[in-house]
Amino acid sequence: MTVRFGLLGAGRIGKVHARAVTANSKARLVAVADAMAEAATALADQYGAEVRTIDAILSASDIDAVVICTPTDTHADLIERFARAGKAVFCEKPIDLDVERVKACLKVVDEAAATLMVGFNRRFDPHFQAIKAAIAEGQIGEVEMITIVSRDPGAPPLDYIRRSGGIFRDMTIHDFDMARFLLGEEIDTVSAQASVLVDPAIGAAGDYDSASLMLSTASGKHATISNSRRATYGYDQRIEVHGSKGAIAAENQRPVSIEIANAEGYTRPPLHDFFMTRYTEAYAREISAFIDCVESKSPATPSGADGLVALALADAALKSVKQGRAVKVSEILGPLADKSVFQGR
Amino acid sequence: MTVRFGLLGAGRIGKVHARAVTANSKARLVAVADAMAEAATALADQYGAEVRTIDAILSASDIDAVVICTPTDTHADLIERFARAGKAVFCEKPIDLDVERVKACLKVVDEAAATLMVGFNRRFDPHFQAIKAAIAEGQIGEVEMITIVSRDPGAPPLDYIRRSGGIFRDMTIHDFDMARFLLGEEIDTVSAQASVLVDPAIGAAGDYDSASLMLSTASGKHATISNSRRATYGYDQRIEVHGSKGAIAAENQRPVSIEIANAEGYTRPPLHDFFMTRYTEAYAREISAFIDCVESKSPATPSGADGLVALALADAALKSVKQGRAVKVSEILGPLADKSVFQGR
Amino acid sequence: MTVRFGLLGAGRIGKVHARAVTANSKARLVAVADAMAEAATALADQYGAEVRTIDAILSASDIDAVVICTPTDTHADLIERFARAGKAVFCEKPIDLDVERVKACLKVVDEAAATLMVGFNRRFDPHFQAIKAAIAEGQIGEVEMITIVSRDPGAPPLDYIRRSGGIFRDMTIHDFDMARFLLGEEIDTVSAQASVLVDPAIGAAGDYDSASLMLSTASGKHATISNSRRATYGYDQRIEVHGSKGAIAAENQRPVSIEIANAEGYTRPPLHDFFMTRYTEAYAREISAFIDCVESKSPATPSGADGLVALALADAALKSVKQGRAVKVSEILGPLADKSVFQGR
Amino acid sequence: MTVRFGLLGAGRIGKVHARAVTANSKARLVAVADAMAEAATALADQYGAEVRTIDAILSASDIDAVVICTPTDTHADLIERFARAGKAVFCEKPIDLDVERVKACLKVVDEAAATLMVGFNRRFDPHFQAIKAAIAEGQIGEVEMITIVSRDPGAPPLDYIRRSGGIFRDMTIHDFDMARFLLGEEIDTVSAQASVLVDPAIGAAGDYDSASLMLSTASGKHATISNSRRATYGYDQRIEVHGSKGAIAAENQRPVSIEIANAEGYTRPPLHDFFMTRYTEAYAREISAFIDCVESKSPATPSGADGLVALALADAALKSVKQGRAVKVSEILGPLADKSVFQGR
Repeated sequence: MTVRFGLLGAGRIGKVHARAVTANSKARLVAVADAMAEAATALADQYGAEVRTIDAILSASDIDAVVICTPTDTHADLIERFARAGKAVFCEKPIDLDVERVKACLKVVDEAAATLMVGFNRRFDPHFQAIKAAIAEGQIGEVEMITIVSRDPGAPPLDYIRRSGGIFRDMTIHDFDMARFLLGEEIDTVSAQASVLVDPAIGAAGDYDSASLMLSTASGKHATISNSRRATYGYDQRIEVHGSKGAIAAENQRPVSIEIANAEGYTRPPLHDFFMTRYTEAYAREISAFIDCVESKSPATPSGADGLVALALADAALKSVKQGRAVKVSEILGPLADKSVFQGR
Repeated sequence: MTVRFGLLGAGRIGKVHARAVTANSKARLVAVADAMAEAATALADQYGAEVRTIDAILSASDIDAVVICTPTDTHADLIERFARAGKAVFCEKPIDLDVERVKACLKVVDEAAATLMVGFNRRFDPHFQAIKAAIAEGQIGEVEMITIVSRDPGAPPLDYIRRSGGIFRDMTIHDFDMARFLLGEEIDTVSAQASVLVDPAIGAAGDYDSASLMLSTASGKHATISNSRRATYGYDQRIEVHGSKGAIAAENQRPVSIEIANAEGYTRPPLHDFFMTRYTEAYAREISAFIDCVESKSPATPSGADGLVALALADAALKSVKQGRAVKVSEILGPLADKSVFQGR
Repeated sequence: MTVRFGLLGAGRIGKVHARAVTANSKARLVAVADAMAEAATALADQYGAEVRTIDAILSASDIDAVVICTPTDTHADLIERFARAGKAVFCEKPIDLDVERVKACLKVVDEAAATLMVGFNRRFDPHFQAIKAAIAEGQIGEVEMITIVSRDPGAPPLDYIRRSGGIFRDMTIHDFDMARFLLGEEIDTVSAQASVLVDPAIGAAGDYDSASLMLSTASGKHATISNSRRATYGYDQRIEVHGSKGAIAAENQRPVSIEIANAEGYTRPPLHDFFMTRYTEAYAREISAFIDCVESKSPATPSGADGLVALALADAALKSVKQGRAVKVSEILGPLADKSVFQGR
Repeated sequence: MTVRFGLLGAGRIGKVHARAVTANSKARLVAVADAMAEAATALADQYGAEVRTIDAILSASDIDAVVICTPTDTHADLIERFARAGKAVFCEKPIDLDVERVKACLKVVDEAAATLMVGFNRRFDPHFQAIKAAIAEGQIGEVEMITIVSRDPGAPPLDYIRRSGGIFRDMTIHDFDMARFLLGEEIDTVSAQASVLVDPAIGAAGDYDSASLMLSTASGKHATISNSRRATYGYDQRIEVHGSKGAIAAENQRPVSIEIANAEGYTRPPLHDFFMTRYTEAYAREISAFIDCVESKSPATPSGADGLVALALADAALKSVKQGRAVKVSEILGPLADKSVFQGR
C-alpha cells in the first residue's frame, strides 16, 4: 500500500515534511495547498505533486492522509474537518494554545475514530530513541531523575514570540513531551522559574527567555528542564536519565566531528545551529511512523492526548512562575475521567 | 614563616588534612588531638608530630593554627575557644546545623578578629577554579544559568544520616556554596523537591535521598541542582555555567583515562568512587590557601559567613519541600544588617 | 541543466549511486543496465528509470553521463568506450589492477578530452573535507605528519579477496588517496610491512590482513597507515594531521551518540559497521561534485591520474613488503613526463 | 623495613626522585651528592638529608640504595661501582649510548647479583598500566597492532641534542620500551624514516626532529611510532593497542578538564606541557616499585636488559633510516645467548 498525502502549508516546516514524505518508499505526495500560490506551486513542482485547495484535498478520493503545517490558529479546525472527512491527520504541534479548545478538538477526533499524530519530532530522534530503548531494556534500572537541557541558538523574531503562547507553550512543550516520553509515569506537579536575561524586548512582549523547571511524579521521580532562547554554541539539546542501576545520556550533535589542537587548546566545531538540520533524521522517522500507523490503522503516538498534556504542563509552568509555588497538573487539566488518552504510551 | 598546626580529630578527614599540611613546605604539623588515643598516636607518629589534648593545643605557644575535624556538634564551641585564644581556625563544614548557633559563633569570631576558614573544599578543585577564572576573564560573558549535578556513589550509613541534618545540610550544602561561588550574586529564592528513591530506610529516618533544586537571584539568574545519594558509576560531580557569550563545563574525573573498544562499544572506566580521591588536589590547595591567609593575616575565604549562608539555603530548601513553594532566603536568614559577611567573595 | 544518467551495474554500490543521483535535484536517472535483468529492473522501477543494455546507453542521445559500478575487470574497457562516445564518466575505483592498463586507459580518456572521475568517496566525507579546509586555511600551519587508521569491521569473502588485487590495491588504496589528498605534496617512497593475523585463509589466498605503512615525500613529510581487515568495534576510520602550528583530527562516526554509565563504566555504542552507512553523506556529495563537473565541463577530481597514482602506491607497498626496503614510487610509475596528471589537485 | 636512599645528582630529574622517595612511607632520603655543592645542599635541606660525596655514599653503611641522576656518560661507571658495593641501583635511562658498553656494564651487575632498575617511567603511568592490565586480562584478545604517538611540546636546547645520542636514543627509546612492554613478544625488525621539519638547526647538529617507525615481531605483530620534537598543543602521549577481540587506548592527559563553548566551538585546554607534570604519578609509582624490589630482593623491572634492548632498537632505527631498509634487531644486538635478559618481563 502507498499512503497518498496532501500537504497543508508549504512553508519552512512544510518543506521538511514534503521531503520526508517523498523520500519514503511507502508514501506519495499527491497535493500541496498553501494560501500563497507561489509557495504551493514551487513545492509541488519540485516533487511532482499537484497544487490544490484545502477544500479540494478534503474531498479528494486520492488522498489518504494530510500533514498540517499551517499557522497554529488553524490547526484545531483543520484537524476536526479532516478527521470528520476520514483522513488520517498528522498535525504539527501545538493543536491549539488553549487547553479547552484542544479538548474539544480531541473529542471530535475521538468521535470520528480518526488517526491523529501530533508532531513531537524529538521522540523520533535516533539518539533519544536509543535512550528510550535502553530504558525499556532495563539497562539503567528504574528511572529516577531526568535532566533536560534545551537551548535555542537564538531567539525567534518578536512577532513570532508574540503569537507563540510564550516560552513554555512554544519551546518547553517539546521538553515536557520528552520528559513524559522517558519518565514512564505521568507528571504530577510543575515548579518553574523564569526570567528575561537574553533580550529585554522579549520581556516587553510579555514573555520570558530563560527558564528552569522541576517536574515530579506521584511516585517521586524528578525531571528538570533548563531553557534559554540563546546559546552562542549552537542548538543545545541534551537529555540525561539517571536510574537505579545507571545513567544514560544523549550527547549534542554537530554537523562536523573534527577537533583542532593548537596552543589555545583542543577545539571542536559548534553544534548544529538549526533545528531542521539537527533533527533531519527525526523528521524522516516521524513521517515513517505515521505512515505505519495509517497503513496498520493503529493508534498514533504521540497522540492528541500527548499534545493536550504537554500543553497543560506549559500552562502549569506559567501558573507556577506567577504564583511562586508548585502547581498540580490536575489544576489545569482537571481529573482525566478517561485515562485512555495515555494509551498511546 | 612556617605555620605551625594543631589537628583536632584524627579520623578520616583529619588524615586528609594531616597529609595536606605536612606536604606543604610552608607548614608543619606540630600536634594531634583525638578522643581516641590510638588514632591520635598513629597519625602523630606517621608525620613526626606530638599527641596533645585539645586544651594543651589551645594554650600552646608553638601552635599558630588549628584544623577542626571533630564531630559536627563540637565545631561551634571549638571555633569560639580557639578564636578567642588567638589561633587561626580552619573548620570542616558545617559550623553547626542550627542557623542561630552559627550566627552566635560568627559573632565571637568577629569580636576576636580571628581568621576562620570553612571547609568547602570544592572551591579549590582545579577544574572548578578554572571555571571561576574563565568567568572572571569574561570568557562566557554574564553568568545566566548554572547546572550542578552532584551525586554520591552510595548513601552513608543510616546512623550518619540521622545525625547529618538531612540531605540539604549534609550534601547539597556543597552545591549551594558552589552556586554562590560561581553566580556572582546572592541567591534570593530556593525551590526544592525531594523524595526517597534509593532506600526506604532513609525515608524512615526522616530524610530524602533524591532532590532537585532551583535557585534564583534578584536579577533573575538561575541555578539548578540535582542530587542523589546513589550513582552506580561513581562520584558524579559536574558543574556547567551558561552565560551570555558562551558556556563552560567541568567534566567528571576518573582515576584512569583509558577506553576499551569491542563489539559492545567503547567503554571508559567508572568515575572516582570516593570524595577524597576525587578531591585530593582540592584538599591540598585548600590548606595552601588557608596557610596563605594565616601568613598574610588576610580574611579567609570561604568564610564563616559563607558557611552561614549555605546553611540558610539548606534550611530554605527544606522549607520549600515542606510547603511546596519558592522560599526567600531572607525568611531564614533575616535581613543581613551587615553585608560584610559577604566581603570574602 | 539536468544531467541525465545511465547506471552500469545494479549491485550494492550501484544502488548507492542510484539513490545519490535521484536525490540530487540537478540530475535524473534515465537508464539502468545490468547483466542480471532482475536487478536492473528492480532498481529502475524504484526510481522510475528504464532498463537498457550498455550498448543502448552508449549510443543514447538522452544520456549525458554514466556511473560505472560493474566488476573491476570491465572498468577500463567501459571507461574507454564511454569516453570515446562523449559521455562523462564516473567510475568506481579501481580503474584496473594493472598500472600499464590504467595508463593506456587514461591515454584514451585524454585523447577523447572526456570527463572522468574516479570513486574515491572519502574525499567527500564532510569530516575529512573539514580537515582539508582547515589545512587550506592554514589552521595547523605546514602539514608534517599524517596518521591514518583504517580498519574494516570484518574481512570480505575469500572469493572477493582472491579477485581484489590484495589488501594494498583493495583497501589501502583509499588511504593512499587520502594521504595524497591531505599531504599537499606527492609521495616519494613507501615502506610497508604486512602479516596475517586475522584469518590464515587470507594468507593461504596469497594476501595479508594486517598492514602498516610509512610514506614520505621529497621534502620529508610523513604519513603512516594502519590497516586491519577486522575491528570488532566497527568501521574504524580515523585521520589525524600534525602540522607546524597544530594538529587536526577526524573522529570516528557512530550511528547513535549515547553513553550509558553504570558500575562497569561509561559505554558508547560501537561505530558504524558498514562503509555505506558510514559514508552516506560522502556518496551524496561525490555525485554532486561529479554533476558540477559535468555541468561546468571542468576537470574532475579525483581524476584518472589520482586513480593511477594510488594504484602505483599499492604496487610499491607490495614490493616493499616483499623486499624489506623503502620503495620509490618512481620505480613503479616511471618518471611522469607530463605532470599534468596531477593537475586536478 | 625502611629503604635508605642516596641520591646522585640534584638536577631537574634528581628533584623529581627526591620528592618521590621522601613521599614514600617505606623510604628515607639519607644523602644527596652533586658536583654543584649548592644544588646538593638546597635539595638536602629541603628534605632533611645530608650532603655527601659519591664516594662517601658508596661506602656508607646507612645507605641501601641509590638513585643515579647524573649525566648520561657517568651512568655505566656508577652502576658498576654501586653494584659491586652491594647497593641496589635505580638509574635513569639510558645506561649508556653505546650498546657494547651497556653489555659490559650489565655483565658486572649480573656478577654482583645486584638489583638494577632502569628509569623507563612510562611503564608506571596509571593509564598505561591499566592498558597492560586489560591486555593481561584478555580484554582485547591477542595483541596485534600497537600505535604510539609521542610528541614533545618543544625541542630541547641544541646543546642537549648534540649530547643526546639522537632522537631515537633520546626520545624514541621510551616508545621502544612501551612497545616491548605491551607487545608481549620481542621486536624482530625495525623500519624507520626521519626528517628535519621542526628546526633546521637540529638537522645541522646531525639529528632529526620528526620520525616514523614500524616495528614487527617474529609472529607478525606490528607497532608504529610517530615522533615529533614539537607539538603546539602540549605533551602528546598516546598509546593504542588493537587486538583480536577489541582495542584499548590511553587518552592524553591535561591539567584541567574543562570545556568552553562559544560561537567558535567547544574548546578544552591544552595538554600538560612538561613531562614531569604529565608523569608525576608515574614517577611516584616507579620509585615505589623499586622500593618493593629492594625490600623483597626480587629482580627489578624494567631491568638492565630492558635498557639494553631499547638502546639496540634505537640503533636499528638509525641504521634503517641510513640504509632505507628494515633492520633486524639481531644485526645490532647479536644473538642473545642467554635470553635471561628478558626474564624481567
